[in-house]
Amino acid sequence: MSASSRILNLAVIPGDGIGQEVVAEGLKVLSAVLPQDVKLETKEYDFGARRYHATGETLTDADLDALKRHDAILLGAIGDPSVPSGVLERGFLLKLRFAFDHHVNLRPSKLLPGVATPLAGEPQIDFVVVREGTEGPYTGNGGTIRKGTEHEVATEVSVNTAYGVERVVRDAFARAQARPRKKLTLVHKNNVLTFAGHLWTNVFDRVAAEYPEVTTEYIHVDAATIYLVTQPERFDVIVTDNLFGDIITDLAAAVSGGIGVAASGNINPSGAFPSMFEPVHGSAPDIAGQGKADPTATVLSVALLLRHLGYETEAARIEDAVSADLAERAGQPARSTARIGDALAVRVAG
Amino acid sequence: MSASSRILNLAVIPGDGIGQEVVAEGLKVLSAVLPQDVKLETKEYDFGARRYHATGETLTDADLDALKRHDAILLGAIGDPSVPSGVLERGFLLKLRFAFDHHVNLRPSKLLPGVATPLAGEPQIDFVVVREGTEGPYTGNGGTIRKGTEHEVATEVSVNTAYGVERVVRDAFARAQARPRKKLTLVHKNNVLTFAGHLWTNVFDRVAAEYPEVTTEYIHVDAATIYLVTQPERFDVIVTDNLFGDIITDLAAAVSGGIGVAASGNINPSGAFPSMFEPVHGSAPDIAGQGKADPTATVLSVALLLRHLGYETEAARIEDAVSADLAERAGQPARSTARIGDALAVRVAG
Ligand SMILES: CC(C)[C@H](C(=O)O)[C@@H](O)C(=O)O
Ligand SMILES: CC(C)[C@H](C(=O)O)[C@@H](O)C(=O)O
Repeated sequence: MSASSRILNLAVIPGDGIGQEVVAEGLKVLSAVLPQDVKLETKEYDFGARRYHATGETLTDADLDALKRHDAILLGAIGDPSVPSGVLERGFLLKLRFAFDHHVNLRPSKLLPGVATPLAGEPQIDFVVVREGTEGPYTGNGGTIRKGTEHEVATEVSVNTAYGVERVVRDAFARAQARPRKKLTLVHKNNVLTFAGHLWTNVFDRVAAEYPEVTTEYIHVDAATIYLVTQPERFDVIVTDNLFGDIITDLAAAVSGGIGVAASGNINPSGAFPSMFEPVHGSAPDIAGQGKADPTATVLSVALLLRHLGYETEAARIEDAVSADLAERAGQPARSTARIGDALAVRVAG
Repeated sequence: MSASSRILNLAVIPGDGIGQEVVAEGLKVLSAVLPQDVKLETKEYDFGARRYHATGETLTDADLDALKRHDAILLGAIGDPSVPSGVLERGFLLKLRFAFDHHVNLRPSKLLPGVATPLAGEPQIDFVVVREGTEGPYTGNGGTIRKGTEHEVATEVSVNTAYGVERVVRDAFARAQARPRKKLTLVHKNNVLTFAGHLWTNVFDRVAAEYPEVTTEYIHVDAATIYLVTQPERFDVIVTDNLFGDIITDLAAAVSGGIGVAASGNINPSGAFPSMFEPVHGSAPDIAGQGKADPTATVLSVALLLRHLGYETEAARIEDAVSADLAERAGQPARSTARIGDALAVRVAG
């Protein structure tokens, strides 16, 4: 769906906890930034704990059919302590990523001026993690025998295919090529996970030959966590497996301003299915409904969504507004969720 | 082997790169701290890149038989760029952990006064990670089909047994019970890795019932990396799976003074096989042979070794010496590997 269609048909999934609040602000800013001649059509879906408690369903085939008709999906957060761990994660979040083949999980980390970081000094942080989204230990392969007994055995199978690895590695090389520093780091654990590790490393090296301008390096995932806190400036683009990507992007979010500002895209670059954009943070039930949640991560996810759909100018406008807003936060009293959304909406419209 | 035997029969594996240098200092401090009436017997083994290049071997059955006869093993570091990734890791390090059933991988993190941390402010860090050492994705289960083709599939199987999980969870509860704060955190990813996650969570909850004084909590591994940089004081004892433990202990080392001071023990609590003690850092070939390596992590590993063998007083003496030495480092010119070892040897003897 390109910008020229001038209709933006969005599926909106507020979800649980603070999801409701932050999505409202994301939509506020989206409406404010869109050109007059673009019509925003939204349809809200009630996925998450509410739907699960009401019907026992998480995501049906009919739901997937409905979602498929949108240009993109904006999600707040899914998850609630009242639902057993794993039910909504596997039954909704991961089911959607797999059903819509969201194999590029894009997570930028940029420490903006004025933003607090737990790191000492003045770290320079500006990288993007391209996390594989449809393979690895996330496939749900595995099982349990003799459950609940002292002889229980539980397995988890990480599945890695040349097809799946190559497409995400190619995506990452293309992104690295397009950035000024042109550097790509492969993060894995190929000295222990030698089967998957060799596949990732070989595919990476093969594709690297097509990108002579891109500087490449390989780092074990354990060492990568060290560099993320001691030398974050060394990273430009990182490509990695689904689980390693999950882990290092939370750490990356923490060092680059916290999960209050970390955005993500679950992207299907082919466009065969709509891509989904969501803040990295969860539903934070402890602060839900109190107007305390920072909607910035959702607003930045809206920027990723717009860029994905071809609205580059509008995406940049949101990012500039967020930078300006964050720069002014230091020393100011905390604002409510809606006040931050209002301020950003004014900035992008102005 | 208890302290009363008055012979300490140690296998020494200097290994590759800086391993040689740091182990020499570890032995220097060990000799200095031991009571006069304890006879230290050491036998050096040439495992690592040298042996591999000379013979193609990494660790034979005869080697294991020889190592088995020692009270404990002190290892420097294994790994060299001249050996393909995975060969020495799987063929030596992991083979030894598995053969000697080193299921408790103990990794303390304590930020000592005067030690630099990449974190801002004055973080309070004093926790220990009990990493499972013989299961999870480290078992070498898995494989590859259609290798090197565009249809390659590579799998890695994480194997988790009630037997294996329970023994390490029990070890962690006992350690938490013995510490002033009595808090134990389970780190896993039970919302995605639901088979292994349920096993870990159920075993953890069952054993928790026997330790009413221990406060427990569960944290997903991705969130744990956030807390390690934003609230490290929340951790007292952490118990976790082999791979998650690998990742978070490197991060833990980074925030609590760097891998220059991070010690570890690969422990078989039953005593059926000797336990192995080693610095968390690798062989650092880039600085090998230059006297630049910090032997502190190895010296602290010697303290863990002594405590394991019942030499509690001597272990504490080493730890005190290291604290005092680190406190005096700030602002001083860097000392060579041997100078640091000399200084620590003087302190523990004095
Ligand atoms: C909630 C969970 C399934 C998810 C993941 O593990 O991918 C989350 O941690 C994330 O990073 O988006
Ligand atoms: C070298 C490697 C096999 C090892 C591991 O992954 O366990 C290392 O990273 C460690 O933490 O001891």
